[in-house]
Amino acid sequence: MNLFDDCGCNMPMQKFYNDDRTMMDDAIAGFVKAHPGELAYAGSKRALCYIGAGRETVRTGIAIGGGSGHDPAFMGFLGRNMADAVAIGDIFTPPRPEDFLAAMEAADHGAGVVCLCGNYIKDITNAETAADILRGKSVDVRIVVINDDIVEEHEGEGRRGSAGEVLAWKVAGAAASGGCSLDEVVHVTEKAVGNMYSMGVGLASCMIPTLGRPNYIIEKGTIEIGVGHHGQSSVDTMKLKPADQIVDRLLAGILDAAGVRQGPCAVMISGLGNTMLSELNILYSRTHDVLTEQGFKICKSYIGNFFTSLDMMGATLTLMMLDEELRALLDLPAFPLAFSQFQANIR
Amino acid sequence: MNLFDDCGCNMPMQKFYNDDRTMMDDAIAGFVKAHPGELAYAGSKRALCYIGAGRETVRTGIAIGGGSGHDPAFMGFLGRNMADAVAIGDIFTPPRPEDFLAAMEAADHGAGVVCLCGNYIKDITNAETAADILRGKSVDVRIVVINDDIVEEHEGEGRRGSAGEVLAWKVAGAAASGGCSLDEVVHVTEKAVGNMYSMGVGLASCMIPTLGRPNYIIEKGTIEIGVGHHGQSSVDTMKLKPADQIVDRLLAGILDAAGVRQGPCAVMISGLGNTMLSELNILYSRTHDVLTEQGFKICKSYIGNFFTSLDMMGATLTLMMLDEELRALLDLPAFPLAFSQFQANIR
Repeated sequence: MNLFDDCGCNMPMQKFYNDDRTMMDDAIAGFVKAHPGELAYAGSKRALCYIGAGRETVRTGIAIGGGSGHDPAFMGFLGRNMADAVAIGDIFTPPRPEDFLAAMEAADHGAGVVCLCGNYIKDITNAETAADILRGKSVDVRIVVINDDIVEEHEGEGRRGSAGEVLAWKVAGAAASGGCSLDEVVHVTEKAVGNMYSMGVGLASCMIPTLGRPNYIIEKGTIEIGVGHHGQSSVDTMKLKPADQIVDRLLAGILDAAGVRQGPCAVMISGLGNTMLSELNILYSRTHDVLTEQGFKICKSYIGNFFTSLDMMGATLTLMMLDEELRALLDLPAFPLAFSQFQANIR
Repeated sequence: MNLFDDCGCNMPMQKFYNDDRTMMDDAIAGFVKAHPGELAYAGSKRALCYIGAGRETVRTGIAIGGGSGHDPAFMGFLGRNMADAVAIGDIFTPPRPEDFLAAMEAADHGAGVVCLCGNYIKDITNAETAADILRGKSVDVRIVVINDDIVEEHEGEGRRGSAGEVLAWKVAGAAASGGCSLDEVVHVTEKAVGNMYSMGVGLASCMIPTLGRPNYIIEKGTIEIGVGHHGQSSVDTMKLKPADQIVDRLLAGILDAAGVRQGPCAVMISGLGNTMLSELNILYSRTHDVLTEQGFKICKSYIGNFFTSLDMMGATLTLMMLDEELRALLDLPAFPLAFSQFQANIR
């Protein structure tokens, strides 16, 4: 729908924006203005770095990167004991190699850089291109690929990255700030990723700003089990069911993939955008009951809109099995900017 | 729309829930399960109290209360240096007097209780009924009414409560944990409220779960300036405009009501539910530029979905003028449970 209203503007979307072509740049600019002394551009309008407290001079650096449309990911997770720098792509589009490079350079604290990205071929290729350039400048760069979603994007490409990316960033950021070497950060982050199992469910599709319409449709009265973060590749279309039955379906898939039936774990229920926290709490309630009943011990739960898909209705459920090392890394307080507004110092 | 699907269930809404009659109780139950050792029922399934670290034996207690549908408000703001207890009503419905009473009793730390609620007559009446009962048990209870919205609900009722309620809770919680007496907490919270000016804008209405439909309609291509948290009483229906022009309209109203043109301040941009953080950052960008240009100094900004209206598209803009005392109270780190998931200790 195109509107030419009395301001003379073309406003195809019922959203807050000035120009759909610069929407993400404008959002990034607002975020930077909101965090003076904590956040700065890293030599590109699509790369940011954390410049607040907690930046020791020599330690492993943590860079992350991915497409836009996943608020508060990715840039909201910059912060003390989390990510040092981020490369930001267009909506549902990988960051460019030069933005990955800018983020990696900004994340470099003199002891090498770990760059985390989801298992999407274009993201990995662009990150590798940047890493090769930085390696030519004698900076050791490692890429850790996160593939927590139990569903494959395309056959043979392996599992997708999903909301578990947030937990991987938490582990990597804690390890780096705790003084772990580059090798150690890579090792423990890969262990975390290997212990994660996510599955998504979609109730309604999202609107793509640059298209002005959804990129796919979920029929009212149906749900998509196994939906991806860009609305892709669900494994099962079903009629809408009570929340408890949806959780049971997700957990059946997750526990089958995990092949475990008990033990200490963390659980993340992330909304996909247009999902009320109350709904996520309802999903958690059943998840808690089923896992506890089976013999799991939920050591830590994360419930909120952490890794969204624009304004999609839906959620992802992530199970992460824990050992003592991973428990300690999740336990270390971290201060991602999007969640530290009541803790952060006034200016 | 009614669906009788293969599970034999009636699912009138495309949302995660089991039964629309128990939706809020189920959400509260999930929230309690997610916070063992931090959160407990306070003698009612509609009253919760914070039981984690930071509960000194003798200090002023902070109770809050209001209807559901405003996630993460109200219960997500329980936590250290924030609210001690909360009374929870049905969706867009005031808490019952007995739930206000349960929350006030749970908030009592031996030095009196301040109960904060928005300026809605039924909320205040129910809180007063509870306060009278508790006063009969020799607990000093004061009620502070928050009326930050520059728009009146009904003529003569005064301005409404809006997202500024969160900042009032922050101030009251910080004052109480800092050792202020009951009188002092009341005084500084009322000062904070008197320094706040909010205005909302709606882009699309919200779906009321118990109705299965919106309680009002915002036509596509139009926006409602001055809309309330329940979709009520806008002051101006306009065509959809670029974000910058919307901010300018809100700020014009706010600055006119405030009657100030410079000075230290805090700014909150709260989404109303189905509003992407990127959109809120775009709104903040313009707010920052206009206020800074005029001579305001933004000491603290809060950008996120803090006080929503179910799945409404829209936002509120709150300006709070600061003196040294209010700055110090906003500056004290606080740990509302909904925003402390990366800081909280593992269990």
